[in-house]
Amino acid sequence: MMNVGDINAAWAAALIDGLAGAGVCRAVISPGSRSTPLALACLRHSGIVSRVLLDERVAAFYALGLARAEEKPVVLVCTSGSAAANWYPAVAEADAARVPLILLTADRPPELQDCGANQTFDQRTLFVPQVRAVHTLPPAEPARDWLAALTARAVSQSLWPLAGPVQINVPFREPLLATDPAPPQSSSLPPLVLQPRLMLPQDSVEILARRVEGRRGVILAGAEHVPAEPLIRLANALNWPIIADPLSGLRFGAHDRKRVMTRGDLFLRGDFPPAEIVLRFGAFPVSKAIGQWQSRAIERIVVSEDSRWPDPGRNAAMMIHADPGLLADSLAAVVTKAVPVEWLDSWYAAEQRSAVAADRLAVPEAALFRAAIAALPEGSLLFVANSMAVRDLDDFSGSSDKRLTVLCNRGLSGIDGNLSTFFGAVASGRFPAALALVGDLTFLHDLSGLAAGQGMSATICLFDNGGGGIFDYLPQTALPEFVPGWLTPQRADFAAATAIWGHRYCPTRPNDVVPALTDALATSGVTVLHLAIDRTGSAARHRAVWAASSSFEETSA
Amino acid sequence: MMNVGDINAAWAAALIDGLAGAGVCRAVISPGSRSTPLALACLRHSGIVSRVLLDERVAAFYALGLARAEEKPVVLVCTSGSAAANWYPAVAEADAARVPLILLTADRPPELQDCGANQTFDQRTLFVPQVRAVHTLPPAEPARDWLAALTARAVSQSLWPLAGPVQINVPFREPLLATDPAPPQSSSLPPLVLQPRLMLPQDSVEILARRVEGRRGVILAGAEHVPAEPLIRLANALNWPIIADPLSGLRFGAHDRKRVMTRGDLFLRGDFPPAEIVLRFGAFPVSKAIGQWQSRAIERIVVSEDSRWPDPGRNAAMMIHADPGLLADSLAAVVTKAVPVEWLDSWYAAEQRSAVAADRLAVPEAALFRAAIAALPEGSLLFVANSMAVRDLDDFSGSSDKRLTVLCNRGLSGIDGNLSTFFGAVASGRFPAALALVGDLTFLHDLSGLAAGQGMSATICLFDNGGGGIFDYLPQTALPEFVPGWLTPQRADFAAATAIWGHRYCPTRPNDVVPALTDALATSGVTVLHLAIDRTGSAARHRAVWAASSSFEETSA
Repeated sequence: MMNVGDINAAWAAALIDGLAGAGVCRAVISPGSRSTPLALACLRHSGIVSRVLLDERVAAFYALGLARAEEKPVVLVCTSGSAAANWYPAVAEADAARVPLILLTADRPPELQDCGANQTFDQRTLFVPQVRAVHTLPPAEPARDWLAALTARAVSQSLWPLAGPVQINVPFREPLLATDPAPPQSSSLPPLVLQPRLMLPQDSVEILARRVEGRRGVILAGAEHVPAEPLIRLANALNWPIIADPLSGLRFGAHDRKRVMTRGDLFLRGDFPPAEIVLRFGAFPVSKAIGQWQSRAIERIVVSEDSRWPDPGRNAAMMIHADPGLLADSLAAVVTKAVPVEWLDSWYAAEQRSAVAADRLAVPEAALFRAAIAALPEGSLLFVANSMAVRDLDDFSGSSDKRLTVLCNRGLSGIDGNLSTFFGAVASGRFPAALALVGDLTFLHDLSGLAAGQGMSATICLFDNGGGGIFDYLPQTALPEFVPGWLTPQRADFAAATAIWGHRYCPTRPNDVVPALTDALATSGVTVLHLAIDRTGSAARHRAVWAASSSFEETSA
Repeated sequence: MMNVGDINAAWAAALIDGLAGAGVCRAVISPGSRSTPLALACLRHSGIVSRVLLDERVAAFYALGLARAEEKPVVLVCTSGSAAANWYPAVAEADAARVPLILLTADRPPELQDCGANQTFDQRTLFVPQVRAVHTLPPAEPARDWLAALTARAVSQSLWPLAGPVQINVPFREPLLATDPAPPQSSSLPPLVLQPRLMLPQDSVEILARRVEGRRGVILAGAEHVPAEPLIRLANALNWPIIADPLSGLRFGAHDRKRVMTRGDLFLRGDFPPAEIVLRFGAFPVSKAIGQWQSRAIERIVVSEDSRWPDPGRNAAMMIHADPGLLADSLAAVVTKAVPVEWLDSWYAAEQRSAVAADRLAVPEAALFRAAIAALPEGSLLFVANSMAVRDLDDFSGSSDKRLTVLCNRGLSGIDGNLSTFFGAVASGRFPAALALVGDLTFLHDLSGLAAGQGMSATICLFDNGGGGIFDYLPQTALPEFVPGWLTPQRADFAAATAIWGHRYCPTRPNDVVPALTDALATSGVTVLHLAIDRTGSAARHRAVWAASSSFEETSA
């Protein structure tokens, strides 16, 4: 008969083997004792690449970045007790952003629950309702063939019908280590899982086509990746422009970008005429101006790629649950009337006017963002933090035929875990170069995330505007308590922060940013370019660009 | 009629005023927009001292440390979205360790829930079942008199019948700021709440007295604060020794420490004879050796100070729910038979033998811990991390008539948030000096916690044994994957880590620790004493001390 240690090892090996058989090939592990069988099974599995990271919060955001970049579920392993609670911010982001994660929480057995045992609390409901499912396993048992099907089910739940995190809680009794060096192999294979795409029936497509064709409309490609080619084919059929959020994936790449508007946040602030119809794919846009402008349209049609209801304005006239690419192509195939060309011309003019204004008024961040995009090689990763970084990208990225992957933790738009997410994406090995654009508070909030960059090559552009610059644009700026309560400038030595993990620190003046970036991208290791931004001056120039871009009358004169 | 901004301000002011009226006087705030009315109400309340900390994980552990040191509920404020999820590790510790926290989570209103709105997820069940209660408020309303009673109820729930965290979820609509500079005062006063002590009926006390008197027993004062004087009076009446966990509060102070054993972890590893009865107050002890020894007693009686069931061995013969001080005194009053003196003599001998062995075998940490305790002035704070720090304190602190407050996050014994907790306790202002003893992984896990120490005077003794030294004592040490998977030594520059926030860094050799400590404690600001420990040598000496202390036969010869 097997002893408990051998049963634990075989059980953990069956779990990890089942996950690997269902397509998982990455594990991110934080050290601990109770999790030993799981960690060992990951480290010893030939099909799993493991990374060990001390801080579970860092580990979870790293796994999130990896899963985003690879578009595959990533396994997390931690020990019992508060360890898993440190995963929570990343789990909440994965829930909101629909990123597949498999959360393997080691646990103590039932006899140690609710009786004051060390490092033990109720982990079974920890992540509810942020997880798609919780599989609460019994303590390891000799009969383990069913774990192949369970792990296949868990991986499937992380992908469909709503991608996101899935927890498997795994209690172990002591001893945690096997005496037998080679645990028996699992004999059972996981089932192959075939998942569908959501296809709208043809009569519904026809109803939609009659509703949209010939009207002054716009496709709004929102703040998550949408399929470029089908949306462009649809825009061509309707003769509509596409407002492309910086996270839509439509701004960068070899596809036809003629109709792709990248400056809507600039020119839709004023009296630009409302559309008759806004057809949105993807999440609500980053831009508040675009969000407000589209609410003035006669009607809004929202395409939800799954069962969610992405309508924060609560004013959609139609909610379509369908695969965006399938829907766009089936709609383009049946549209017969295009809108007259004048409609599109007004968009081209506004886009051009905004580009000129941004150049003329020289917002410091604009030049930096353009330089960064120019410096990156084809296929690179461009990671942006929330708050000002993604908004400046929105306003000033423009468009390029260079293919870039733009990532941002936009599910909950948190300040947390941004560096960890970035390094996780870098770890995918899919990008010839990687650049993160982050503010000073975001950088400091994930200080420990810098540890995850050891051994990688990547560049972090740290925009230091001396605190939470975004609050300069909010009414809180007028409060007497503004500086200590909202701006919260941190007295921190960024050179020291960078040095902890042996990364390279380059204080960089705006005028030197192009050579500094080029140099950093060509150098192995992690480089932090520290750019001091004049916060007040920057805010004034942002406002000037918005004012110059947004007056429809002025520039059509 | 009031506008929405004014209603928000008055609502938040009523909440904070109600909490202050119920005894809260501290708030820890992380910056955000949706939380503006709450943050402003805290910052403007004359009865609340506020601290703003960027990282919500740091903020929550800081609040935990403050609440531990002040023994009063502390308010946390954060914005909507993933912010509150960063509180989770500290909330889980507060739940396990019964630390009162009031969690004020700002939220978006119902119309922005479940519809893809930014920074919005389901916060209402986030902390269930780790919180005592969740109060889900409606969006701010003009009628707010009832908030005085609600906040009194929330504070009461954080203290009784089981102390711990309580959440109040507070949605706000925009605009978030008031136009009226002086919001109307609340007219209603919170009720005064009177809470009971748990008193065992006299007939139950008599039953207990007959069960314990005259038998060879021991009082086990476990890993949380227990009332010294009543326990000593009871030990005197029974003529029993007291095994004092380092977190029991019994090792340091002017009380009669004659019966207080501080080296049980050393001498109870071997063939020390089992007791007939173990009467435990407080949580299960830190020491595994003590835990195993007491399981060999004929019977165990556990005193739970509330409704919990602190019996991880599942082998208690009696579970008594009663106030420890009341119970000890009422029992001492009716005990008539004491155990013969030989029983106690065998304990004195073992304690003495262990002290000699520890001195003779010169475990490096032993001298350091003794020096640290000697250097601290009366009334100081001694914070210890989990893992090796609290175990070395257990083995080597000895006992002193100097009053010290020993704190440790022993609820879930996490590696997380230790520096933040320490600085939170320091912020109470109750201690003339403060010293934290932490290992290298614990230090790095809470790197951002160093930010919280700005402006304080405190000393951190960083025991750097090059990774997770505790694993040297576990079977994982034999694995080929031991170093990358469990020991996980970090290539980190601790001088740089200390420099980020302007703290002082002192690399210290063991021989220089006494002057270095004395100097650090006398200097304002935060000092990090970095002590390199020879991990392998230290483990060997620990083992030698345990061996020399634990043979009962050898030394009674």
